[in-house]
Amino acid sequence: MKTILEYARANQNRFLAELKEFLRIPSISTQPEHKPDVERAAAWLRDKLLAAGFPKAEVMPTRGHPVVYAEWLAAGPEAPTILVYGHYDVQPPDPLEEWNTPPFEPTIVGDDIFCRGASDDKGQLYIHVKAVETFKATAGRPPVNVKCIFEGEEESGSPSLEPFIREHRELLAADVAVISDADILGQDLPSIAYALRGLAYVEVEVIGPDHDLHSGIYGGAVRNPINALCAMITRLQDENGHITVPGFYDKVRELDPEERAEMAKVPFERETWLHEAGVKTDWGEPAYTIVERTTARPTLDVNGIWGGYIEPGAKTVLPSKAFAKISMRLVPDQEPVEIAQLIRSYLAEIAPPTVTVEARDLHGCDAAIVRRDSPAMKAACRAYAEVFGREPVFVREGGSIPVVAIFQKLLGIETVLIGFGLPDDRLHSPNEKFHLPNFYKGIETILCFMKFLGE
Amino acid sequence: MKTILEYARANQNRFLAELKEFLRIPSISTQPEHKPDVERAAAWLRDKLLAAGFPKAEVMPTRGHPVVYAEWLAAGPEAPTILVYGHYDVQPPDPLEEWNTPPFEPTIVGDDIFCRGASDDKGQLYIHVKAVETFKATAGRPPVNVKCIFEGEEESGSPSLEPFIREHRELLAADVAVISDADILGQDLPSIAYALRGLAYVEVEVIGPDHDLHSGIYGGAVRNPINALCAMITRLQDENGHITVPGFYDKVRELDPEERAEMAKVPFERETWLHEAGVKTDWGEPAYTIVERTTARPTLDVNGIWGGYIEPGAKTVLPSKAFAKISMRLVPDQEPVEIAQLIRSYLAEIAPPTVTVEARDLHGCDAAIVRRDSPAMKAACRAYAEVFGREPVFVREGGSIPVVAIFQKLLGIETVLIGFGLPDDRLHSPNEKFHLPNFYKGIETILCFMKFLGE
Repeated sequence: MKTILEYARANQNRFLAELKEFLRIPSISTQPEHKPDVERAAAWLRDKLLAAGFPKAEVMPTRGHPVVYAEWLAAGPEAPTILVYGHYDVQPPDPLEEWNTPPFEPTIVGDDIFCRGASDDKGQLYIHVKAVETFKATAGRPPVNVKCIFEGEEESGSPSLEPFIREHRELLAADVAVISDADILGQDLPSIAYALRGLAYVEVEVIGPDHDLHSGIYGGAVRNPINALCAMITRLQDENGHITVPGFYDKVRELDPEERAEMAKVPFERETWLHEAGVKTDWGEPAYTIVERTTARPTLDVNGIWGGYIEPGAKTVLPSKAFAKISMRLVPDQEPVEIAQLIRSYLAEIAPPTVTVEARDLHGCDAAIVRRDSPAMKAACRAYAEVFGREPVFVREGGSIPVVAIFQKLLGIETVLIGFGLPDDRLHSPNEKFHLPNFYKGIETILCFMKFLGE
Repeated sequence: MKTILEYARANQNRFLAELKEFLRIPSISTQPEHKPDVERAAAWLRDKLLAAGFPKAEVMPTRGHPVVYAEWLAAGPEAPTILVYGHYDVQPPDPLEEWNTPPFEPTIVGDDIFCRGASDDKGQLYIHVKAVETFKATAGRPPVNVKCIFEGEEESGSPSLEPFIREHRELLAADVAVISDADILGQDLPSIAYALRGLAYVEVEVIGPDHDLHSGIYGGAVRNPINALCAMITRLQDENGHITVPGFYDKVRELDPEERAEMAKVPFERETWLHEAGVKTDWGEPAYTIVERTTARPTLDVNGIWGGYIEPGAKTVLPSKAFAKISMRLVPDQEPVEIAQLIRSYLAEIAPPTVTVEARDLHGCDAAIVRRDSPAMKAACRAYAEVFGREPVFVREGGSIPVVAIFQKLLGIETVLIGFGLPDDRLHSPNEKFHLPNFYKGIETILCFMKFLGE
């Protein structure tokens, strides 16, 4: 292992230089004018995978941006096979004026490298490529079989990913998936997320009169769809955030006392959290802690609302329509399709007879929870402990990583989330950065992880 | 009177030709690029007033678009003085593609003249100019003293009108104001509005976190300002439209049984009303009829609401802010300033401690109610009966004409609303029209009105 780590350390400057090349490609997947850049990033990545030793690496077409697939199965059929997932596309850099350095010119300040995609996810993805290269250069091959699936559409909602996986189940067959597209709690506090919330997202349209009316002429005798929508939204949850849609909690897997006790051990500073959230006080179900509310409890938020006159000044319109986007974060074992159905039915039930209500599903994804005692999880914990000097803590994530549930559903495998980002990496925001020590420690952690898993 | 009416009838074609000239000027007050047109319309009107016999007619500057003022006080100090109000500006013609004829090319189809401003208010305003011309050409002078105030900012909220009236109280001193900027119930059903609702209009801003948050990371522990706004809006009125802001009804002058009985006599077809409103069913306070709810009862409507992500698709934002525009139609003797204060206090009271709520006044105007037995009102009734063959019915208007309350407050005079529009004139909409028989009958009605009032 010593030789292996020595190689990785000796080559840090070259690894960084390559990462900079990768970061300079503005592979913004949502902007059609950047399609050539997305393709360039895919080709660049394929070449680096081949150079790292993968005997097979190719750019595979999808309905959208391509997937880069690579495999090296030299560890033999007895050794485990890991499926590394990452994404080579990035968010748009807007608002440009808030960047302190050019968004696609990687700039090192202190220990951080600033660039769009530095942490999300090029820097974290490239860790795996360089770990494999290190094994090739030292041991001749990685100690486990490695497959890679790197997509180019994660920042636009991964529309082609599920069909791609469905069509390539055999190719992608593995024992466990590994994803480095997440944070650890702190530089000295490695953590592993073992649960992710799911999502059900509906758009509601309330239709009152069939055209906009003058509120002076009709006000008082025509139900205003905005007022009606507000009343309906208000009936979806109580003032403490408990959701009042019938049946909503039926399948919620309650936290058991041991898990709550474990969660309570994870360092959490309420003042820091309030500062980061930008609020004076927290809110929510009083029987649960902030951490539990944001990770282990389902929630309901109106993500957008609009209707009537929304320009400056006063216009006395009684509008024809009002709209809201409403999403619910789900926890195991809530099913997105079922929850969306429950809210649509309830909205129909509470809709006043004086308006018409339509609710349509926009989006959904399953919650996911993985075992904390699997061999891959144990190897990940040992690897973090080896490199960061501390056992990682287990945390639940409040957000969703849909691919985790997709892997579970289509490939029947669990995922280990081995992240190296930090909470202040400013993903999706101006001045995104990646902490360089975590790039290098990340490579060492993955080296250890593969080694321990292969033992 | 016979000679007088004959002159008016003999000159109908010329009057119409002049009205067409007036209508061709696109005097859109809200659009800065049309400022020269607004000024051209003012100058054109001044010239026509001089030509009609007014010894004094001038374009007077204001902070915004000019007022055209004219006076002819030859009836002597014993005769009453009327102050004719109208507006020579028009609404923008958008959406252009919905017009069947060019919006600023007056086009006659059947008995209607189609053009922006035909009914609102150029056609109705010009009736008064041609009535005065008729008196000059036949009797030598009008039988009452006539002052005219024609503004160019009515369609942009009359920002300069109240200051102008305040600065020219002596110049504008009169016994009664006359406005032709309203509808009658039908071609065979003349009507006079004797009450107008007032308005209090506030904009509410609910501030949650100080920046947009990821609903996956913070949802469940941070109060969502959209949900909070909806809950607050829901507490402003019950499901039947009864407003629950404390003190809101304290000064409402209740309808007395006689007035309700009179209102019930005015022809009203529920099916027609539902069709015009574009709704399947009505709504509102069950103890009041549709007509009472829309004219004699105060109301509350959200005129606009917005917050969060309002583009297509799904974004899981927990937004920083949410906004609503809320207006209340008021009835005598509710005071706009007081009502706005009541709602602002109530919003502050019901604001959850987890958000910050700011409410600001956007706009307000007093309700107005005038005597139905004044000499001017009696003269107007006689004039309608003479020309339309039927006594007008008295109605309350649901909307607001702020100048009525301004005249009452600053000049101490009541207003008689002698309208000649029809309910299907499509004011502010594409294909606005004016019914030509009402243009000619309007001139005759004003001739009779002035004659009867001067007797």
